[in-house]
Amino acid sequence: MAFFTKRYHPPGTAPGTLTAVPADQAAQLKVHLTDYTADQITALEDIEPVECQPYLQRDSMTWVHVQGHPTEAALHELQAAFKLHHLALEDVLNRGQRPKIEPYDDQLFIVMSMPLMKSGLVEVQQVSFFLSGTFVISFCEGDFAPFRKIVNRLREPGSRLRSRGSDFLLYGLLDLVIDQGFPVLEDFGQQMEDLEEQILRTSDNETLERIHTVKRELILLRHMLWPHREVINQLLRDDHAQIKEGTMIYLRDCYDHTIQLMDLLETYRDMMGSMLDIYLSSVNNRMNEVIRVLTVIATIFIPLTFITGIYGMNFDRTAGFWNMPELGLPYGYVLVWLLMVGVVASMLIYFRRRKWF
Amino acid sequence: MAFFTKRYHPPGTAPGTLTAVPADQAAQLKVHLTDYTADQITALEDIEPVECQPYLQRDSMTWVHVQGHPTEAALHELQAAFKLHHLALEDVLNRGQRPKIEPYDDQLFIVMSMPLMKSGLVEVQQVSFFLSGTFVISFCEGDFAPFRKIVNRLREPGSRLRSRGSDFLLYGLLDLVIDQGFPVLEDFGQQMEDLEEQILRTSDNETLERIHTVKRELILLRHMLWPHREVINQLLRDDHAQIKEGTMIYLRDCYDHTIQLMDLLETYRDMMGSMLDIYLSSVNNRMNEVIRVLTVIATIFIPLTFITGIYGMNFDRTAGFWNMPELGLPYGYVLVWLLMVGVVASMLIYFRRRKWF
Amino acid sequence: MAFFTKRYHPPGTAPGTLTAVPADQAAQLKVHLTDYTADQITALEDIEPVECQPYLQRDSMTWVHVQGHPTEAALHELQAAFKLHHLALEDVLNRGQRPKIEPYDDQLFIVMSMPLMKSGLVEVQQVSFFLSGTFVISFCEGDFAPFRKIVNRLREPGSRLRSRGSDFLLYGLLDLVIDQGFPVLEDFGQQMEDLEEQILRTSDNETLERIHTVKRELILLRHMLWPHREVINQLLRDDHAQIKEGTMIYLRDCYDHTIQLMDLLETYRDMMGSMLDIYLSSVNNRMNEVIRVLTVIATIFIPLTFITGIYGMNFDRTAGFWNMPELGLPYGYVLVWLLMVGVVASMLIYFRRRKWF
Amino acid sequence: MAFFTKRYHPPGTAPGTLTAVPADQAAQLKVHLTDYTADQITALEDIEPVECQPYLQRDSMTWVHVQGHPTEAALHELQAAFKLHHLALEDVLNRGQRPKIEPYDDQLFIVMSMPLMKSGLVEVQQVSFFLSGTFVISFCEGDFAPFRKIVNRLREPGSRLRSRGSDFLLYGLLDLVIDQGFPVLEDFGQQMEDLEEQILRTSDNETLERIHTVKRELILLRHMLWPHREVINQLLRDDHAQIKEGTMIYLRDCYDHTIQLMDLLETYRDMMGSMLDIYLSSVNNRMNEVIRVLTVIATIFIPLTFITGIYGMNFDRTAGFWNMPELGLPYGYVLVWLLMVGVVASMLIYFRRRKWF
Amino acid sequence: MAFFTKRYHPPGTAPGTLTAVPADQAAQLKVHLTDYTADQITALEDIEPVECQPYLQRDSMTWVHVQGHPTEAALHELQAAFKLHHLALEDVLNRGQRPKIEPYDDQLFIVMSMPLMKSGLVEVQQVSFFLSGTFVISFCEGDFAPFRKIVNRLREPGSRLRSRGSDFLLYGLLDLVIDQGFPVLEDFGQQMEDLEEQILRTSDNETLERIHTVKRELILLRHMLWPHREVINQLLRDDHAQIKEGTMIYLRDCYDHTIQLMDLLETYRDMMGSMLDIYLSSVNNRMNEVIRVLTVIATIFIPLTFITGIYGMNFDRTAGFWNMPELGLPYGYVLVWLLMVGVVASMLIYFRRRKWF
Repeated sequence: MAFFTKRYHPPGTAPGTLTAVPADQAAQLKVHLTDYTADQITALEDIEPVECQPYLQRDSMTWVHVQGHPTEAALHELQAAFKLHHLALEDVLNRGQRPKIEPYDDQLFIVMSMPLMKSGLVEVQQVSFFLSGTFVISFCEGDFAPFRKIVNRLREPGSRLRSRGSDFLLYGLLDLVIDQGFPVLEDFGQQMEDLEEQILRTSDNETLERIHTVKRELILLRHMLWPHREVINQLLRDDHAQIKEGTMIYLRDCYDHTIQLMDLLETYRDMMGSMLDIYLSSVNNRMNEVIRVLTVIATIFIPLTFITGIYGMNFDRTAGFWNMPELGLPYGYVLVWLLMVGVVASMLIYFRRRKWF
Repeated sequence: MAFFTKRYHPPGTAPGTLTAVPADQAAQLKVHLTDYTADQITALEDIEPVECQPYLQRDSMTWVHVQGHPTEAALHELQAAFKLHHLALEDVLNRGQRPKIEPYDDQLFIVMSMPLMKSGLVEVQQVSFFLSGTFVISFCEGDFAPFRKIVNRLREPGSRLRSRGSDFLLYGLLDLVIDQGFPVLEDFGQQMEDLEEQILRTSDNETLERIHTVKRELILLRHMLWPHREVINQLLRDDHAQIKEGTMIYLRDCYDHTIQLMDLLETYRDMMGSMLDIYLSSVNNRMNEVIRVLTVIATIFIPLTFITGIYGMNFDRTAGFWNMPELGLPYGYVLVWLLMVGVVASMLIYFRRRKWF
Repeated sequence: MAFFTKRYHPPGTAPGTLTAVPADQAAQLKVHLTDYTADQITALEDIEPVECQPYLQRDSMTWVHVQGHPTEAALHELQAAFKLHHLALEDVLNRGQRPKIEPYDDQLFIVMSMPLMKSGLVEVQQVSFFLSGTFVISFCEGDFAPFRKIVNRLREPGSRLRSRGSDFLLYGLLDLVIDQGFPVLEDFGQQMEDLEEQILRTSDNETLERIHTVKRELILLRHMLWPHREVINQLLRDDHAQIKEGTMIYLRDCYDHTIQLMDLLETYRDMMGSMLDIYLSSVNNRMNEVIRVLTVIATIFIPLTFITGIYGMNFDRTAGFWNMPELGLPYGYVLVWLLMVGVVASMLIYFRRRKWF
Repeated sequence: MAFFTKRYHPPGTAPGTLTAVPADQAAQLKVHLTDYTADQITALEDIEPVECQPYLQRDSMTWVHVQGHPTEAALHELQAAFKLHHLALEDVLNRGQRPKIEPYDDQLFIVMSMPLMKSGLVEVQQVSFFLSGTFVISFCEGDFAPFRKIVNRLREPGSRLRSRGSDFLLYGLLDLVIDQGFPVLEDFGQQMEDLEEQILRTSDNETLERIHTVKRELILLRHMLWPHREVINQLLRDDHAQIKEGTMIYLRDCYDHTIQLMDLLETYRDMMGSMLDIYLSSVNNRMNEVIRVLTVIATIFIPLTFITGIYGMNFDRTAGFWNMPELGLPYGYVLVWLLMVGVVASMLIYFRRRKWF
Repeated sequence: MAFFTKRYHPPGTAPGTLTAVPADQAAQLKVHLTDYTADQITALEDIEPVECQPYLQRDSMTWVHVQGHPTEAALHELQAAFKLHHLALEDVLNRGQRPKIEPYDDQLFIVMSMPLMKSGLVEVQQVSFFLSGTFVISFCEGDFAPFRKIVNRLREPGSRLRSRGSDFLLYGLLDLVIDQGFPVLEDFGQQMEDLEEQILRTSDNETLERIHTVKRELILLRHMLWPHREVINQLLRDDHAQIKEGTMIYLRDCYDHTIQLMDLLETYRDMMGSMLDIYLSSVNNRMNEVIRVLTVIATIFIPLTFITGIYGMNFDRTAGFWNMPELGLPYGYVLVWLLMVGVVASMLIYFRRRKWF
């Protein structure tokens, strides 16, 4: 994940300015519509925004999902078709918003962050919702695949989702977005258990890099998901006309999930902090051990080498009696060996006492 | 304890979906029933769910404890027999829930975490309760043994537990679950006192591993037990029809225990943080001492060895007067020894002044 | 940024004392006026304070922007012209105030901090606002350039800014000041991604200095921007006569931006803490590697050098049979080489087992 | 202080179960009674619980202090004599409770922790109080000595304590217990000032052990004393019939003391954290200095030793002209000395530039 | 600053006991009186407490400042003269109180901490105030100098201070005490900028000692000043009869200053934490560099010295062909030099690749 992901207008731009993503970056815009009552259901994929119009005016429940980046033209079409507030639409386009809930006239505007695991990396996509009495409009840049599960559940004739109103559909979508956090955190849990094995065994930079990566992803993920709790709490606490009483018990379940996720993220953060400390200590211990070996070897051999140095000197034994008389002793060499054995032995006793090996 | 213990459905699954644990992982399901009034008591172990039906319909208090993982068939039987809400039952099955309290219609649903010491390791089991006016249903995967104490207390004819309603039985069970924390924390307290002895004496990875293990278990335990406080607080604060006034004073006692436990956990966490710091410092001191010994030995002998090297050179003394005339002095060797003693002495004075030994 | 930027009077000075900046430090004072109704607009740059008088008395909306440090004379002129409270004016002059909102009689006084990137460094300027029903007066030491965008938006005849009251103009200015935070944080995000590349590769003081600089600037920036949230929240929560209902939805958008910025700053702070830890660990690993190489080389060659020292001794082989008989063996030299190869091999096996290379 | 000091019943034990301390651990039980009105006073030491009965029934104020561990028989005698609630009495016996306040019927039950300095070590004793309209009963395992001051103040005929009710007596006792914290914290303050002297001068494990001891005692003390604040706050806030209006001003003074103590404890904790950091840095600096000396000595002499090694080789100068011709130069030895002086000089210049000494 | 500065009575002492400071420690007591109405002013320095009596009974505003430690006799004189509550007077004498506000009958008692820079060190003095409708009594051990500014402002006939009541005088004094924090924090800001220069350049204990000193003074200062915020907040929030409506706007200004000071202190604390981390890292980098030099030198010369050692051995070349035949080669010495150059070159290539220099 990048550190700064928010799109923003230059400071001083008028509120509600809609700037489409440059054409070359814009993913293809696709509109998917599902219109249903308890009796019948129509599901259309990849249609034109205008085609939604007739469905929105009926009494049936309508779910419109807009995938990809809209172009400037598409934007105004969408705004006209769904009567969306310009401040809300600005937030839809300037992705990287903090999750939030905002009532606009008779619509409820909600921004959420959906985490996904893609080939071992976390990716967070902004999902925006507009809720009115008879429709839900959702926007997401990414793939439609995760949302298709909801279409499938709507297709089952007797399903709870089918027979309830647009607020229950919104709950289903929010629940879908929030629950994407569980597989992501399970994956992190797995990575952390792997790391735990490593930290006491290895001291290379690769382990360190993995610790850093997990830590940073957890910090960023927390930053992205933390506001979910407040969003769902506001849905529960404030009295929004669009949310019916019977949906509350399900939103409470949703709220419970956001708390579980945040709780787990906090626990993981604590854990990673602890792991880095342990890793550091383990590296320290390893260095300690290396230095101890160096010290033992060096302090044993340095005096010995000095002794051999002594008897390698070339003083002229003929110049005086006191010039290296040891060299002429019949057992001089043997005595030197005994001396050296004595030095080594006393060193070893000293090290053993200090518990250095 | 594993980092991620929650069972969850794939995101997008309909709420209240009940998926039994795969048959090969499912512990054998056992249902225990205790039905009592002030006058009589019936305690049955390992019965069929349907056998509970007649007891539930009577006015007597009934406690049904379900042990192990239910199979899919058993699940629907249970749901039908006890009229449990499907969202609650989903939480019973998807173990690893955060402790919580949720009112469903005329039942109160409570999830708790019960910590147990098993052969030196902490294990946390989810315990779920349903409370209605005349019965308590409890679910726990693990052994029935800890709960048998309640059966024994119920068997005593004049006991307070026997003469009061289902809310007092729930209190008894909650108190049992919460108080399991005390022996666990006592064990941790013991482990920490052992560690405290070690950290200043040893610097091996085994001590480090023990510090890490205690830290991680404390973090996970806190994550599991922290919400207990809120659960009991909600029982005290909110006005639940199922809880009678007279039980409140006992629940306050229970609340007091949750606070004591959390308080102790926080204190232990602070303590472990402090211990790791002290351990690190102690390892550092030890390394310091090793390096100091190395330095003293090396800086004493390296110059000496250099001196012996000088007089081990083979310059041709016959080629000129200035080629190593020292070698021909009658007392050359003695002078070199004096020089070396002088070097050592000045080194030792230097080290002593710097307080290196 | 400096640590202490507040101008203050010596303790015990009477409240509301106005001390102009010493003449040599004072930037040239410039007054810019924009007077507008839905129909017409007058924009004057660099005028005398007195020239504002007639515009303030009309019903049209008036925005006066005071740029630079006023002299003592200009101060009293300003106070008289705009009827500003003496405590508020003291805060305008003693720059380095904490952002705050204070109602004085029928004026609302607001202090904000505007961060700007100037040639790679953050600079924070105090911007002060006085809002009454028909005018906004803004003070800022720095350049008028960022504010000119608002003049341009006012110049567009049909713009929302033009047709609404002074409260909407205030919103526009607050939004401008707050949104300056986004490019600044984007820049920090970029710097942190650069640093992330470096910390695992290098261990020089230059990287450390960059980490420190980013950390300190984030701490100071947070200190400056944190109170914005409270200022906007008070505007939303308290019932100020000067703020009309229709502007609330825009101020909520503004509030949302302050939260996003603080959120990001907190996340960045966590990140920098994590990065410093990783940097430290990486430096440690590097030192570990260096020491390991030293140890391997030293522990291999020190014993070998000792062996060569042995056979460099000059014991007189003629003095006795036991004086270095190895020197006279026909294969003595070869045997010594074999011995040395053996020592090296066993050392290497030992190191390999300990995974030192 | 031990980490885990709470006595508890095995989980599942009925609430209010009273288990006396095993006879061999039980300190001798002593009951002290002081009965007083404004006119007269009776003070009895070491009496039987039953002897209190007549005093409790009179209108005079009665203070009964129970010292030591009661046996099982004594327990029931006490309960009967003073009509104490069984849950409260359980908390009196299971010492190691968290300070708390609990109203039981017409009695107020309060648990406090009294810290005492005993021969340089902190010891925390649980003190429990029962307050009713005409009596205070206090329990404390430890010595009666600190409480005797209250008896002495009661003995003074005109003292405020003597003329007011049981609530003022309770205030006197609470104040006594809380104020024991001041000498304890003064002692810690002294210890910390001593440590401050040491940390920059020494790097031995003894200093480290002292830092650890102070840190752990502060953590445990905070854990014990923190709830005092809440206890006194509840006394002030809630409307307890037993506490009269006129005592409130004194309890506020008491509350102020609890806050001062906690404030000081927090400040000390911050300070100890800072001291450990400084100690660590100082140890690091010391190691740095040692390593620098080693490096300077080693890097100066290693090249010199190499040079002497060169001219200690025994190449046969007669075998060819290029075999060590230097040995035969008339000034060879002098040149080698000059070379070595040059090497040392350039090394010293290098080190001086890097500011290594 | 010392860690423990509070004077306290032995636990169990009766509340309101007044113990004068021992005569030898007591600073000379001086009483200063300023009595004023809008028309006239009387300022007397160093008078007897009884002389204040007539002024207190008049309707004019009276400010009595008591400097130094009162003796026991003076104490009772003061208490009688000003009708001060005995609990409040105890707090005046037992200096080292936490700042607080306490209403006693018709007087308001306020304790504040005044920080002063004295020759580069912070000193905190307790200042106590009694406010009634017509007088303010202030106590401060230290010099009268800072307070004389208020006398001077009172002397100016038309000043705001002169024409308003005792509550405005109190505001003036509180503002004076609080604003003493700004020069102190400016000084700390300066010290920190100096430190910032040092931490990356030096690694001596003197820098470390300065870091520690700044950290500890900031911790203690925060401990002393933090409660100011609550004191002023209570003045603003609670409805005290002695404080008039018109003074509120000035007290809000005062409150704003306390927040600015605390904010700055917190920011400084964060900064010092960051600086210590950077210092530690910088010391580590420096050690790393030293060790790297040692390693490069040692690993280059140790193998070379070994080679010279080989050819310094004295094997008897006449004993067999394989005894050191190299010594007899015409170009043996040259070959050895080539070998050694090769070793050095490959070492250098290895180090260059690892980026060790």
